[in-house]
Amino acid sequence: MAKMIRKNYLMAPGPTPVPIDILLEGAKDTIHHRTPQYLKIQEKAIEGCKYLFQTENPVFILSSSGTGAMEAAVSNLVSKDDKIIVVNSGKFGERWLKLCKTFGGNVIEIKKDWGTAVTPEEIKETLDKNPDVKAVFTTLNETSTGGKHPIKEIAAVVKETSAVLVVDAISGLLALPLKMDEWGVDVVVTGVQKGFMMPPGIALISMSPKAMELVNKCTTPRFYFDLKAYAKNFPDSPYTPPVNLVYQLSKAVEMLKEEGIENIWERHRIMADATRAGVEALGLKFFAKDAGDVLTSVWVPEGIDGGKLVKYLRDEMGITVAGGQDHVKGKIMRIAHLGYMSQFDIIIVMSGLEMALNKFGYKTELGAGVKAVEEVLMREGV
Amino acid sequence: MAKMIRKNYLMAPGPTPVPIDILLEGAKDTIHHRTPQYLKIQEKAIEGCKYLFQTENPVFILSSSGTGAMEAAVSNLVSKDDKIIVVNSGKFGERWLKLCKTFGGNVIEIKKDWGTAVTPEEIKETLDKNPDVKAVFTTLNETSTGGKHPIKEIAAVVKETSAVLVVDAISGLLALPLKMDEWGVDVVVTGVQKGFMMPPGIALISMSPKAMELVNKCTTPRFYFDLKAYAKNFPDSPYTPPVNLVYQLSKAVEMLKEEGIENIWERHRIMADATRAGVEALGLKFFAKDAGDVLTSVWVPEGIDGGKLVKYLRDEMGITVAGGQDHVKGKIMRIAHLGYMSQFDIIIVMSGLEMALNKFGYKTELGAGVKAVEEVLMREGV
Repeated sequence: MAKMIRKNYLMAPGPTPVPIDILLEGAKDTIHHRTPQYLKIQEKAIEGCKYLFQTENPVFILSSSGTGAMEAAVSNLVSKDDKIIVVNSGKFGERWLKLCKTFGGNVIEIKKDWGTAVTPEEIKETLDKNPDVKAVFTTLNETSTGGKHPIKEIAAVVKETSAVLVVDAISGLLALPLKMDEWGVDVVVTGVQKGFMMPPGIALISMSPKAMELVNKCTTPRFYFDLKAYAKNFPDSPYTPPVNLVYQLSKAVEMLKEEGIENIWERHRIMADATRAGVEALGLKFFAKDAGDVLTSVWVPEGIDGGKLVKYLRDEMGITVAGGQDHVKGKIMRIAHLGYMSQFDIIIVMSGLEMALNKFGYKTELGAGVKAVEEVLMREGV
Repeated sequence: MAKMIRKNYLMAPGPTPVPIDILLEGAKDTIHHRTPQYLKIQEKAIEGCKYLFQTENPVFILSSSGTGAMEAAVSNLVSKDDKIIVVNSGKFGERWLKLCKTFGGNVIEIKKDWGTAVTPEEIKETLDKNPDVKAVFTTLNETSTGGKHPIKEIAAVVKETSAVLVVDAISGLLALPLKMDEWGVDVVVTGVQKGFMMPPGIALISMSPKAMELVNKCTTPRFYFDLKAYAKNFPDSPYTPPVNLVYQLSKAVEMLKEEGIENIWERHRIMADATRAGVEALGLKFFAKDAGDVLTSVWVPEGIDGGKLVKYLRDEMGITVAGGQDHVKGKIMRIAHLGYMSQFDIIIVMSGLEMALNKFGYKTELGAGVKAVEEVLMREGV
């Protein structure tokens, strides 16, 4: 029996696959960041980001992971004892909660079951009861579950108040529609290792004028992430930017702009629909009640150790999907269809899953999942 | 007259030139960071960093610029109203000052003229008068001036007290000797776009057990840079690490380890000596009284606009040196000999300088600076 070449298929919700053209862009000669030559590249990257955020607001480039941008949002908006609302329906809602508490916020938590969406009515009711709320923190796509929140409808509620709406769009941006200006979202944060098809190392944050007013008044001590410094130096950076990653960002936004935002959203929807048809055909049950198009979370069949299944897929087949976190560790599996992926990546993960499940004793017809995926692809005219 | 190809010579104190082997390492396939495959690469990078820091303490990898690591040091060590000493002899001493004040420190500033070193006696005297000082913040090489501080001697003073010694070695590490454990330095921070020969985007921080005790007691609100989380997850990362930059770090430390720390220090000394002989032969005056081997700062000759000279070198000749900052803007020039450089890079900058100075009306014998550089190189047996 011949040993196969093990190719690398990244089907976890970040880092996602990076096109070779973007990888090589990062291998270009490093130039000094305080030069007009560099600034031109950064400006192009920012212009593209504004398009992808669907905003005329500035988009600030941070040298950090996505969590850094989340901290930037909190430490620039939340002063000690400020009343704020945090929607918590998973690991990353919980991160908002921890950040807001760390920086002294008086937090009203709206806790939802993992994978369940908050309703605009719940937000409205909480805001009505607490007219002094300064900010509402929520999530476009909850990476730990694949659940989404109805940001457009939430924005319609929040923009009628003095509060600002802050959205963690780290894994959600580009995979799910978000129109920052049209919807009236005040703050959007993301990381580039997801829909932007880049290696990790840059986080992005955009602020509406309403949010910037709060930033200017905020008394929380901060320095590296102080957005006043970023606004003052914009489109330049206050500290050394990650030059070669910015080359890559500039290339990535060029590719994404050429594709067009509507098409980006639509291809993610098709990949999500196809994946779901496939896992359903295999008889698996969905985990998230209100799933978005970033990833599909499914219960691992009874009697199978999810950790071992994920490890088998990764180490034997080269397919990296994510397992569950916290109370669903070993119980769910998260298959991402995010970023630089095509229909055949969905075929690959479905085929791998069919073979792996059978190997682990879960008897399912080989090819059944792939067939269902193909049916969706054919129907969608892909 | 033919137009020349404009090659890119980075002679500013960061970013510094990146070897093509390191650039290409970053173009390798991105893998998921929560895998044993990735962790092996990060562990190798950390082992190399420990050697280059000359320490057995953990070295934490931060996804940030160097300023992020400086903030990590301050926000993890300085609680509100803690008495601390900050040595300020340039832009980056000033950054320690701003950071320490931002996070509520009760700062005793030792202010020195730009380019002038603090003495161990001054530190001792201030510590004797203030036995309740928690930390002393200083700088190995002050990037804005090229001045150095006597860290070994300062460490000998500080380690006799309960205070911890924190050294900004962002531009200094590898170009100037620093033996963290042997000298008793408690905290060292650096960035990789200097002596490490990498594109920017990673900062490094190492903490002695004495410093970690303070970290564990520190009450300053912090999250992204909370070193308790980094220590808990070590050698793994609490948040998504900049995967492809860590590939490059792993490659860079391999190359540097192979060269050997003593040789790295020695080649920086020779490049500094050669540069200084050259600029002296051109009749230029040095700016920093206590210069280290990272960069050579010189006064721009009377009557020449330093900003224009720096721009000419960059835009016409492709040689990026740095100008002056703040009160010496347009008045000094900073020529770095830092990182991935050889003797011929010194020859290039000297030759470019000779031609540019003559172009700007400062009459000096063509070849005189290069001759002096060559004499040092020959004498050193390079």
